[in-house]
Amino acid sequence: MSSRMIEIEGHIIDSLILPQIFEIVMDMGGDFEVKDFKIGRFKHETSYAKLEIKSPDDELLDSILVRLRDVGVSVIKEDEARCEPAPGDGVYPDSFYSTTNLDTSVKYNGRWIEVENPEMDCAICIEEEPLRAYTVTLNGVKKGDMIVCGHSGVRVTRPERPRSKDVFEFMASSVSSEKPKEKLIAQIAAQMRSVKEEGGKILLVGGPAIIHTGAGKYLSCLIRNEYINTLFGGNALAVHDLEYAIYGTSLGIYLDKGIPSDRGHEHHLRAINTIRKYGSIKAAIEAGVVKKGVMYEAVMKGIDYVLAGSIRDDGPLPEIETDSVKAQQKMRELVPGTKLVIMLASALHSIATGNILPASVRLVTVDINPAIVTKLMDRGSFQSLGIVTDVQSFLRELCHCLELVV
Amino acid sequence: MSSRMIEIEGHIIDSLILPQIFEIVMDMGGDFEVKDFKIGRFKHETSYAKLEIKSPDDELLDSILVRLRDVGVSVIKEDEARCEPAPGDGVYPDSFYSTTNLDTSVKYNGRWIEVENPEMDCAICIEEEPLRAYTVTLNGVKKGDMIVCGHSGVRVTRPERPRSKDVFEFMASSVSSEKPKEKLIAQIAAQMRSVKEEGGKILLVGGPAIIHTGAGKYLSCLIRNEYINTLFGGNALAVHDLEYAIYGTSLGIYLDKGIPSDRGHEHHLRAINTIRKYGSIKAAIEAGVVKKGVMYEAVMKGIDYVLAGSIRDDGPLPEIETDSVKAQQKMRELVPGTKLVIMLASALHSIATGNILPASVRLVTVDINPAIVTKLMDRGSFQSLGIVTDVQSFLRELCHCLELVV
Amino acid sequence: MSSRMIEIEGHIIDSLILPQIFEIVMDMGGDFEVKDFKIGRFKHETSYAKLEIKSPDDELLDSILVRLRDVGVSVIKEDEARCEPAPGDGVYPDSFYSTTNLDTSVKYNGRWIEVENPEMDCAICIEEEPLRAYTVTLNGVKKGDMIVCGHSGVRVTRPERPRSKDVFEFMASSVSSEKPKEKLIAQIAAQMRSVKEEGGKILLVGGPAIIHTGAGKYLSCLIRNEYINTLFGGNALAVHDLEYAIYGTSLGIYLDKGIPSDRGHEHHLRAINTIRKYGSIKAAIEAGVVKKGVMYEAVMKGIDYVLAGSIRDDGPLPEIETDSVKAQQKMRELVPGTKLVIMLASALHSIATGNILPASVRLVTVDINPAIVTKLMDRGSFQSLGIVTDVQSFLRELCHCLELVV
Amino acid sequence: MSSRMIEIEGHIIDSLILPQIFEIVMDMGGDFEVKDFKIGRFKHETSYAKLEIKSPDDELLDSILVRLRDVGVSVIKEDEARCEPAPGDGVYPDSFYSTTNLDTSVKYNGRWIEVENPEMDCAICIEEEPLRAYTVTLNGVKKGDMIVCGHSGVRVTRPERPRSKDVFEFMASSVSSEKPKEKLIAQIAAQMRSVKEEGGKILLVGGPAIIHTGAGKYLSCLIRNEYINTLFGGNALAVHDLEYAIYGTSLGIYLDKGIPSDRGHEHHLRAINTIRKYGSIKAAIEAGVVKKGVMYEAVMKGIDYVLAGSIRDDGPLPEIETDSVKAQQKMRELVPGTKLVIMLASALHSIATGNILPASVRLVTVDINPAIVTKLMDRGSFQSLGIVTDVQSFLRELCHCLELVV
Repeated sequence: MSSRMIEIEGHIIDSLILPQIFEIVMDMGGDFEVKDFKIGRFKHETSYAKLEIKSPDDELLDSILVRLRDVGVSVIKEDEARCEPAPGDGVYPDSFYSTTNLDTSVKYNGRWIEVENPEMDCAICIEEEPLRAYTVTLNGVKKGDMIVCGHSGVRVTRPERPRSKDVFEFMASSVSSEKPKEKLIAQIAAQMRSVKEEGGKILLVGGPAIIHTGAGKYLSCLIRNEYINTLFGGNALAVHDLEYAIYGTSLGIYLDKGIPSDRGHEHHLRAINTIRKYGSIKAAIEAGVVKKGVMYEAVMKGIDYVLAGSIRDDGPLPEIETDSVKAQQKMRELVPGTKLVIMLASALHSIATGNILPASVRLVTVDINPAIVTKLMDRGSFQSLGIVTDVQSFLRELCHCLELVV
Repeated sequence: MSSRMIEIEGHIIDSLILPQIFEIVMDMGGDFEVKDFKIGRFKHETSYAKLEIKSPDDELLDSILVRLRDVGVSVIKEDEARCEPAPGDGVYPDSFYSTTNLDTSVKYNGRWIEVENPEMDCAICIEEEPLRAYTVTLNGVKKGDMIVCGHSGVRVTRPERPRSKDVFEFMASSVSSEKPKEKLIAQIAAQMRSVKEEGGKILLVGGPAIIHTGAGKYLSCLIRNEYINTLFGGNALAVHDLEYAIYGTSLGIYLDKGIPSDRGHEHHLRAINTIRKYGSIKAAIEAGVVKKGVMYEAVMKGIDYVLAGSIRDDGPLPEIETDSVKAQQKMRELVPGTKLVIMLASALHSIATGNILPASVRLVTVDINPAIVTKLMDRGSFQSLGIVTDVQSFLRELCHCLELVV
Repeated sequence: MSSRMIEIEGHIIDSLILPQIFEIVMDMGGDFEVKDFKIGRFKHETSYAKLEIKSPDDELLDSILVRLRDVGVSVIKEDEARCEPAPGDGVYPDSFYSTTNLDTSVKYNGRWIEVENPEMDCAICIEEEPLRAYTVTLNGVKKGDMIVCGHSGVRVTRPERPRSKDVFEFMASSVSSEKPKEKLIAQIAAQMRSVKEEGGKILLVGGPAIIHTGAGKYLSCLIRNEYINTLFGGNALAVHDLEYAIYGTSLGIYLDKGIPSDRGHEHHLRAINTIRKYGSIKAAIEAGVVKKGVMYEAVMKGIDYVLAGSIRDDGPLPEIETDSVKAQQKMRELVPGTKLVIMLASALHSIATGNILPASVRLVTVDINPAIVTKLMDRGSFQSLGIVTDVQSFLRELCHCLELVV
Repeated sequence: MSSRMIEIEGHIIDSLILPQIFEIVMDMGGDFEVKDFKIGRFKHETSYAKLEIKSPDDELLDSILVRLRDVGVSVIKEDEARCEPAPGDGVYPDSFYSTTNLDTSVKYNGRWIEVENPEMDCAICIEEEPLRAYTVTLNGVKKGDMIVCGHSGVRVTRPERPRSKDVFEFMASSVSSEKPKEKLIAQIAAQMRSVKEEGGKILLVGGPAIIHTGAGKYLSCLIRNEYINTLFGGNALAVHDLEYAIYGTSLGIYLDKGIPSDRGHEHHLRAINTIRKYGSIKAAIEAGVVKKGVMYEAVMKGIDYVLAGSIRDDGPLPEIETDSVKAQQKMRELVPGTKLVIMLASALHSIATGNILPASVRLVTVDINPAIVTKLMDRGSFQSLGIVTDVQSFLRELCHCLELVV
């Protein structure tokens, strides 16, 4: 019989951490004995538990401790993080520690260092002069980088559920098209105002349905009024926006009349050809060919944007980053400083963005398909809000709540 | 080899009737020879075709002719309709003619009689004094009723596609959440105005999501302004509307604040109990307990409504018709005179309504689930318009287009 | 400042009850102080907590205590249940206690009585001679029945999460079409065998897709081999099953050839007419008209079934209970003794069944639409398993796992 | 008033071409007069129509004729195709003719030339020595390429609907999860056998749900038995297949036990790292690390495959073509010779494949989500079959029909 003493402190009961510990130990075939337990007597006090974890053998005990560290448990007398050099460019050492999107620290030379840019499914690289730890992607790792291996000396901080609840958090608990959404959108508008005032960045990830449904004018208005600092999308978003700017149609339908244009299904390809002829969206704007729309406002306001390519694209436009690894890297570089992310009617780009976001960023997801909203919100965080509605209604109401003139 | 001469006249080419005839004959293993064909030389002229239908044997020939009659073909020298008495209450003769929802006539004593109240999946009953033909449901047929049997002497008129197209018809062709819907809703508003002016009736079929999403105030407004003549729904629509009138909540959520009421999940049951205590919705209104909402306006305006029960109902309310056959009958009686049907976020009640509507009635279907919209629109008619959006956005925009003060 | 002492004992940490208590108190604006806390030191030991609940005023304190009782908290020195007579047939007293589907007891004359037949959204009726408590539906309550009012003296027992986990429980945690389902179905087969051996009842709720997809033969086989004790469905399930028995088609498609029958869309109506002619399904079986299928096996095996009507029904068949309140009552009477419920491709009937089931019954839900599976499983219980697949594949695999010859 | 004489010959009535012509002319505001009409008197005879098309002005007349050419109408005395040189690399001339996926010919120097590799949303390039015409993508066009402009001299052949119908074609008409699918899958198996016998190629496009549902063994079996010539997929398909080969899990779930592996959610990243360490899938196979699975069989059989990258990828694997334009090009090069395409549970890769396929290739689409099946089948062709089911059931049944030992 092996055993080891662990301790944990914090809001471990209402954050569900203690029950989780019990569950992990029992699920994995171990046993526990509570040696000490101090429950916070008032709501601002933290609780403390000291437990002896028992197991039939050392190997299982290690597995259990590895799992427990991920929920924030400290094995008393904590070990150092162990590093190995990457064996080649783009290859981690075999036993690399695989990251979560939670705030993470590593113990190195006796002190805890916070890991920069938390991102899931990466490794942690340690540099000595000056001492720092950061996530490194599989594609970005270089031969010889010092990579954290195993689970010793790694500590993960699960966001504690805030004790007070606002409407935002309440409504987030379930995804349904049957909720009164006017209040939800008003809350999002309030969030946007406060992020803007505090100098945080707002990132919008959008799909082409924004344009097809005639909601491009609302997104344009948000950009013009400096509510969007960063825009992620694909070829289709930009193409149909530019088609609208040049021809007045999206997918060949006149957005102001709701009827199809003769041969309008060719407009998107002709729009791409036109932009390619000028060499860039900016050049087409300068030439007076594009005078309105989402891309027009994005270029005029000089906001950051990444248009990432995909294999279903026509053209594509000159601005498209066709290499998926480079596109991810460009997106990743724009994330720091982001306080709020709004994902609108885009599965591919939203999932890609979700992959690179730290768990601590607030997230609003809007789609008419409840399955997509559920999928995007499933990030183990208390910071997500999903709304099932059509994107045109959402953006119109959002502009209304922000008192913008469209 | 058997053969028979048939003829058909009308807009048989652009209404796709002629190709359908060819297809039916060939699919069933027959053959045809075109004996005469006059195509309308101008767009207002009808076309005429005379064809010899051939088949290896009499039995198959009969089957083919039976099918062809349904698309409006006349066998030259048309036979009379054949009748048999119903063998018992609620039972048709074995070989009864099963109806479609299309305009239908029967040949009886040498003259064509139009069948009253076309409805699918019924039989045709003929009365002699005075001479009339009407659809009779399986449940409604009485022993001895003269029921049309076989296919002789029955003629069905498929609605011809109008030669000019309005936006309404164009957009109806496909169901998508990615269409610019503001124009579509403006068209529906225009339809409603014109039906109202011409004295036709507008029937609304609604589900409880109207209330949960906070759109009850828009539907109330439509009723108050006399845009709705008939309302079909279920227990849940009325219960949550009354819950809102009494408690300010729907499903326990305060609609004006978007937050849940303490023990609010009990409100719907308490609302039902309250109405039962007074004996009826009307009595609760008179007692001053219910002062607003959809049912309030429906009662105050005196519009016709049917609240049909289902096995998933709580309570139910006193007004609910719990017997499904009686509920169908009540709904059926309110259909004549209806020119436009709007189905909102209700699968069960909408399908039931679709079952009893003639193909000639215009139909608008709104749901956030595209599968439900597609299913409801699949009625072999050129008169249906489907919109994939949430019902709150739809109703708000509709009231806006009708310039109503909510 | 008001306050009250409460205590709770059990597996309150790993069953998430203690965190829930903290959350409720704080959400509602109260405060708490932990006066005593004994955590179970070994996994078979229960824990105990004594807390002082504080609130600015008595009214809020009462609201908080009311909510806490639902999670099993005892206010020290527990009050008696308070009763009032029902003011009329079909009407509860205003302040009636509204039930959950959890195991419930009431304190009456100094002793705790278990409430019979737990069902959500009902009231509790107490009879004195002999002393018993049972749920009574709004429709079933009679004038003068003694109905429990308020929350004093009512105790609800939330099912504690089992400490050991089987595959069944693990997989139940999420609904996805992307799980390896062969193992899941093998587990369900094992459950069915063990329920059958122990003499428990298995209830199957089914929709017509069972027949359309050609899976009727598998369900027939389950009934023939006595794996189904009770069958709930609607007119459509029985009609298409009988259509298949009489014509070999379902919805007019020959199930063995996959091609449509000429005029096959009339078969369902002709099948209904045939059964009506004989007077009942049983009479049609005796006359030799129906020789196979789900209803054939159900009648021959003499299992209990309820075919509940709905307003979208054609016909209906003579066996249909067209009154929704009576149908609910018939279903309710067949629930006691049921240990496992399998819901297949039926939203309406499954929701209705879910409404009348105690939380303690195991539930398997199968549908190709993940939204329906999620909705049906959302019952606050650890006893539900959802599978997203088509019903034909599910039933074929289930028969395979049970080693049945189809 | 302008007018022009046109003629058309073929199965123009049962292929719905004549009604389409009438509709186009009237929708666009023109008028027509039928000058001559000969209907095929027997089913093997074609029909002929000569019409005078009239319009208020020349410009509209031209627009109408442009549209009519797309349905195969010849303006009597047909003009030559007009060419212009591409103004730059990656840019078409402004008035380029935008292609469909239908068989197309261009009239050049007095003769009709068939356009090679029909693909939608491209331009047509003409080379003189030797004389040929082919589609060229926007990305592939070079400065100076002779590109067909305007609509003169371009003729499109819409596939005529076959006069006889097989089950395949019948069932294709609608997408539903409620069809008896065993017969459908048997038909697909028969198609696969006959394509294989005739030396045609079968292309499979697959998503990772194939692996997650445990169906990888069936796809492996199809490849091993030479039923698949080409495989299109993404990083996720290959990663989870390799995860299974290395760890026995997919998404961390043991496929043979249905339970999760401890820390199994890291397996996919560790699998990618392992393959990167060896440098390629092939090298990992040679090293004995990968011994089974879809990629193993694909490499061992030497079939063609394209693994296209996307921005949501982890890693990615060394084999991934991360540049979307290059990936499209690789896919495009493998299409010629393909007679049957099977798309399984993959939206992104299936849409991309659909974009580059000629309309003449038979297509089978399988997904559990009916919306995706409907979207992929909407290609204006009579050659598509959609099945709504889970991919594991489909592949198991397909292997069974092909009598393969899995």
